[in-house]
Amino acid sequence: MKQHTITVLVNDHPGVLQRVSSLFGRRGYNIDSITVGSSEDPGLSRMVIVTTVDDAKLEQIQKQLYKLIDVIQVTNLITNQMVAGDLGLIKVRADPSSRPEILGVVEAFRASVVDISPISLIVQIVGKPSKVDAMIELLQPYGILQLSRTGVTAMSRGDVNRYSCSQAAAVNRII
Amino acid sequence: MKQHTITVLVNDHPGVLQRVSSLFGRRGYNIDSITVGSSEDPGLSRMVIVTTVDDAKLEQIQKQLYKLIDVIQVTNLITNQMVAGDLGLIKVRADPSSRPEILGVVEAFRASVVDISPISLIVQIVGKPSKVDAMIELLQPYGILQLSRTGVTAMSRGDVNRYSCSQAAAVNRII
Repeated sequence: MKQHTITVLVNDHPGVLQRVSSLFGRRGYNIDSITVGSSEDPGLSRMVIVTTVDDAKLEQIQKQLYKLIDVIQVTNLITNQMVAGDLGLIKVRADPSSRPEILGVVEAFRASVVDISPISLIVQIVGKPSKVDAMIELLQPYGILQLSRTGVTAMSRGDVNRYSCSQAAAVNRII
Repeated sequence: MKQHTITVLVNDHPGVLQRVSSLFGRRGYNIDSITVGSSEDPGLSRMVIVTTVDDAKLEQIQKQLYKLIDVIQVTNLITNQMVAGDLGLIKVRADPSSRPEILGVVEAFRASVVDISPISLIVQIVGKPSKVDAMIELLQPYGILQLSRTGVTAMSRGDVNRYSCSQAAAVNRII
């Protein structure tokens, strides 16, 4: 069992998210994280799904995804050849006395403070999921009031995926 | 019709995303953006859904969400009292001659470059969705090879939502 990151290019139609998530739900594959956003092509959205399965099941998932209506391209990103980012908003308890300490942590992580109230502040952190996890762990002792994360978005580095597209048209567009 | 941002606290069980997305799909409510990530409470996840509906429908959605198994709390965030963030990875065509120009844009947006290849670079940008949109528009002329966005995550500023929790237990925990 290994964590895999799959990107799925889909038509931006209602019901696509439902079909993809029910494929995973029905078969009992666990989704560690899923994000959906616009892609470089108007009319197409890109989903990034992180899932922990063995290699045989991964292949199954890819095949089943291709069978769904509105799925155009499925790519399995290779861990050491991808850039991944997660965005976390952390509302942490911070009175004036503990604030400087927290700001020190924020600076060390190159995070930023996006809101301050008399008893709390909201920290915005971006990076690999493990970095966001580490930040949360460090802020835990002060009291985390609220936490919101986007989940992982990712893409292949450089030109790694240049030739892995499923459609000749897409290849032409990219090169 | 207005854009609304709803946060939904749910049990971290398989099938929840499927149920929520099929509620929107079935009723024909459009999801502009959806993100799912861990929350401050282990075992609970927080979804942030951006949807464009009128106020009457919004109330309907909230009621219907509460009827779903595993939905614990639904909060409608007020636009001018929330912090929202979107994370975009943009792979843009960049040869050595156009690179300095692009780096200028990156700096102006306080974005960062997370990968460089001989013919492209990957820009990571964080901010309100409108800021990410603006950056994409500015990079468009150079050629956007790939675009991946997480969608919006959001939370209320300061202590705005302090008393809006649906469960007394949650209120106690937060205060």
